[in-house]
Amino acid sequence: MYNFNMKFSQSFIPTLREVPADAVIASHRLMFRAGMIRKLSNGLFAWLPLGYRSFRKLEQIVREEMDAIGSLEIRPPVIVPGELWKESGRWDAYGDALMRLKNRTGADFVVSPTAEEAFTALVRDELSSYRQLPISLYQINTKYRDEVRPRYGVMRGREFVMKDAYTFHADEACLDEAYQKMGRAYRRIFKRCALTVIPVQADSGAMGGSGSEEIMVESEIGDNTLLLCKSCTYAANVEKASCKLDYAPRFSMEIAKSAAASVPPLEKIDTPNVKTIEEICAFFKTDAKSFIKTLIYKAKNVELDLGNIPGIAKKGSQAYPEVFIAAAIRGDLDINETKLTALLKAAEVELANEEDILRITKAPVGFTGPVGLEGIPLIVDPSVTSINDGICGGLAKDLHFKHAAWGRDFEAWKIADIRTVKAGDACPLCGGELYEKKGNELGHIFKLGNKYTVSMNVSYLDENGKTCVPIMGCYGLGLDRTIASIIEEHHDDDGIIWPMSMAPYHVTIIPIKYEGAVRETGDALAAELEKAGVEFLLDDRDERPGVKFKDADLIGIPLRVVIGDKNLAGDAPKIELKHRKEKESRLVSVSKAAEEIISVIKSELDNLSGE
Amino acid sequence: MYNFNMKFSQSFIPTLREVPADAVIASHRLMFRAGMIRKLSNGLFAWLPLGYRSFRKLEQIVREEMDAIGSLEIRPPVIVPGELWKESGRWDAYGDALMRLKNRTGADFVVSPTAEEAFTALVRDELSSYRQLPISLYQINTKYRDEVRPRYGVMRGREFVMKDAYTFHADEACLDEAYQKMGRAYRRIFKRCALTVIPVQADSGAMGGSGSEEIMVESEIGDNTLLLCKSCTYAANVEKASCKLDYAPRFSMEIAKSAAASVPPLEKIDTPNVKTIEEICAFFKTDAKSFIKTLIYKAKNVELDLGNIPGIAKKGSQAYPEVFIAAAIRGDLDINETKLTALLKAAEVELANEEDILRITKAPVGFTGPVGLEGIPLIVDPSVTSINDGICGGLAKDLHFKHAAWGRDFEAWKIADIRTVKAGDACPLCGGELYEKKGNELGHIFKLGNKYTVSMNVSYLDENGKTCVPIMGCYGLGLDRTIASIIEEHHDDDGIIWPMSMAPYHVTIIPIKYEGAVRETGDALAAELEKAGVEFLLDDRDERPGVKFKDADLIGIPLRVVIGDKNLAGDAPKIELKHRKEKESRLVSVSKAAEEIISVIKSELDNLSGE
Repeated sequence: MYNFNMKFSQSFIPTLREVPADAVIASHRLMFRAGMIRKLSNGLFAWLPLGYRSFRKLEQIVREEMDAIGSLEIRPPVIVPGELWKESGRWDAYGDALMRLKNRTGADFVVSPTAEEAFTALVRDELSSYRQLPISLYQINTKYRDEVRPRYGVMRGREFVMKDAYTFHADEACLDEAYQKMGRAYRRIFKRCALTVIPVQADSGAMGGSGSEEIMVESEIGDNTLLLCKSCTYAANVEKASCKLDYAPRFSMEIAKSAAASVPPLEKIDTPNVKTIEEICAFFKTDAKSFIKTLIYKAKNVELDLGNIPGIAKKGSQAYPEVFIAAAIRGDLDINETKLTALLKAAEVELANEEDILRITKAPVGFTGPVGLEGIPLIVDPSVTSINDGICGGLAKDLHFKHAAWGRDFEAWKIADIRTVKAGDACPLCGGELYEKKGNELGHIFKLGNKYTVSMNVSYLDENGKTCVPIMGCYGLGLDRTIASIIEEHHDDDGIIWPMSMAPYHVTIIPIKYEGAVRETGDALAAELEKAGVEFLLDDRDERPGVKFKDADLIGIPLRVVIGDKNLAGDAPKIELKHRKEKESRLVSVSKAAEEIISVIKSELDNLSGE
Repeated sequence: MYNFNMKFSQSFIPTLREVPADAVIASHRLMFRAGMIRKLSNGLFAWLPLGYRSFRKLEQIVREEMDAIGSLEIRPPVIVPGELWKESGRWDAYGDALMRLKNRTGADFVVSPTAEEAFTALVRDELSSYRQLPISLYQINTKYRDEVRPRYGVMRGREFVMKDAYTFHADEACLDEAYQKMGRAYRRIFKRCALTVIPVQADSGAMGGSGSEEIMVESEIGDNTLLLCKSCTYAANVEKASCKLDYAPRFSMEIAKSAAASVPPLEKIDTPNVKTIEEICAFFKTDAKSFIKTLIYKAKNVELDLGNIPGIAKKGSQAYPEVFIAAAIRGDLDINETKLTALLKAAEVELANEEDILRITKAPVGFTGPVGLEGIPLIVDPSVTSINDGICGGLAKDLHFKHAAWGRDFEAWKIADIRTVKAGDACPLCGGELYEKKGNELGHIFKLGNKYTVSMNVSYLDENGKTCVPIMGCYGLGLDRTIASIIEEHHDDDGIIWPMSMAPYHVTIIPIKYEGAVRETGDALAAELEKAGVEFLLDDRDERPGVKFKDADLIGIPLRVVIGDKNLAGDAPKIELKHRKEKESRLVSVSKAAEEIISVIKSELDNLSGE
């Protein structure tokens, strides 16, 4: 049925010897050179015939695995009413990456960057009874994100294709089941693509717990930092990573106060020109672990209840549009803004500017400290609670405090883990040493909870006729960057080395010169392979063998058959068979060639599919 | 491989008894009621699981037929740089249906309504030698047109999926070959969908000849008028239709002048309050065939060389941005603006307003005539040349001319067919009677010529090293409206009647009650069918049989198996098998059921594919 076989001369595979100037990673270079993609504009790519064959193979693998877990494929529009995004609150919250547009009547629309709103709206209109739950829907569709700086080819483009699934459930147990199933489907998908992935715990915002997993691939240009354990399977995004503590926290104020009794009284120290932690350590002749580092942050759309802190206004009963927060941590550690954002249930946090710091702390930048700090909620990392006799900013120019004692000289509004874990820290599971990798996110499975079902008013009647709000999970997978990542993992200096499952063709047949007995043998082999459903590219071009070999290596087709007069001569005519990933070729009798090729293909495909 | 089998309870098929208020055509009503689609906004629809299964079947049929003629699938982005549309000139020319947008850097983009620009740009960058030609590329991708008035469900939506192919050639013969192949592929596609289509000659703009064919389906709400011959196969869009003339035209001015010698001299007649053709006929006691109807048009972006007509300025050497044209035709006939537009190679023509008419003719509306009309090019339909002794407007209020003679009293700048052909006119091929139908366009194959390759500077070197510009063909096919059209043709009062090739499932298995022996028999049959690759929907819901039957009829699955205790009882247990398109069911022995079902499916699929 599918006309998968092709002569090179009739295809459109514009291979290149030179490397585009902006292609700094292997996949970008090779996808261009192999004629898989071309750039139409920054971050906008066209998949050419060769690339699109691999693309469609991935699409099919993803579709099969989604179907296998009972998720149902739908196709919502790419252009979605802005109204739905206003309902969910993301019209304002999403930022500049959301491509907003107006149609001829002046109505607002978005080019979907993700589809929580569309799926939620569709389910909202059909859902009435608990009997309809769970519902699991997915699409494989075009997405657009107006990235500030698209780069690395399709690894970070503006338009891309994503598989995104959304599930709806009556209870947490049911959501968890779907979440686990989805995780297993993702592992099968990546296995079938021969891609080594690292599933990591990720920031899960309001849901907490094990509700968010990112599927990463290691990448020198990855925009995620991953913490992995040398001794066990622990893996987490730095945004979420925790560690075993190298100190004893004192959460109890009673214990803190009694320990503080032995600390000398708080002392003001003039510290002209002492600002950085290094300068402070030198001045006080101590190390950074004695210093209480305190920073002022501006947080937007905070949903956490801050209580009755004066001067902080709530926007209706919803959220605080803009709030200042102080955060303190031990001097040798760094604050993790993602953890802080999640803790506050905020849209984002950023460091306060000089003016705001002066207004809040009455001191210039560099002299903020927890002692005497008023009118602002103070969050301290547990590391601060272990400092018995500390040094901190004195809330005035050129002033520091010495002998600052937790529980005696200051308390916190909240104690929470806001620490950035680093290589060398101890694994929270086994205490082993953590190390860092850079990673790119290929997929994300996420327990959304009721964020969208509440804001968009989705409900159903339970068995007792009571109105309930369903909870949701969402599950994304980027197709374009998955393909780029496969190439990152499977290539050498000469080109791509496709895993059999993702190869645009299983085999390339190269006649040294496409004429006479060589041509006849090539055509006969092609016909035999076609009958068996093998996808081949027959290089019928009038080019030198060296050019054909170079292109074959670049394009990365797993099996290469070379047919030449020399090997055909004699009683036992032979062809040369070589696997792209191997150095050596071997001679196979013409009469056995098809059988041998079919057997290699089948065994590799079976191997990848785990069958 | 594909997990095509499904229990109804685990699917998401929200069938409805009521009809949406805005659904005025059968396909729109049934697609909603069968849970195939839902509306997100005016002209924006989501395909739900059931609908998307049929959608994907069509996609696959289209893909197979495109691949079979050697067209290569690619995937350009949906969002395309506005720059390319400015190069082609369509950024300005396309009108408000083009969704233009700006990204965060202020750069212009369009949401592709069609992809001549993107494909031309891709080929431009790769094409260097005649050896690479011909090139045939296609995509199946999302399109957006900001329709003024989207309606009839997916028949006229704003976002839709289109297969669009573009071919590039060195010469006309090669283009013609691709054009013919594409036409045959379209006929196979529609045959496989069991869709009755009418291929009609269409307006082909600058290319002329047989360079444009639209594939239509008859439709009461069609926005095209088709002229068909009762006696032969002639079929044309009214925009293009011609007819056998019922008069003898006099193209030769010599003949015209000599004939005019016997006509009485031109005479001015006062005609107060005589304006309409009926009033003129009554006043002059003659019929409309003696009247020379003359209209003034405003034409935009005229590319036809108008010569040295005073007062008409060219925009560079390119086109006349705005030109007034007079057009005359026999009083009983109407002018066809599409033909006029094509003749002028204009972007559009519209009737001039009162003010312009007054300025140009020195008379109010209703008194325009060809005699003495100056400073404006006059185009006459051949019908005018047959009027020996005519009546026409006198270029002054309440004035007409009598005895106006072609060749003596006026001449034309151009004689050309600008007549609107109507039902009752004679077929241009066989003279048979033409009749009218309303039609919707599903596909269009079109010889574009060098419109885009010239404006976008595409070139290659021919065998002699000479720089040449390739010519193009373009070939569109709307998937959404094709599906709607299949339903328009295949339904009854109870619901859809899917052709086997397009059915979301081949067979629905309905256990009267899904328990005991009935359930066992249903499950066993399902398992047997699954092994054979048959797609089935097992209605395992705890609903009354009537509800299940009604849903089955609505959804339109071709084969229905009913399993009940009564027919299972006894020595020869049976199931009931019914074809959706037939009234009667028949009993089939349980042991033969799968075999029988598989055989019906195979025979219907073979029949549609013509094998």
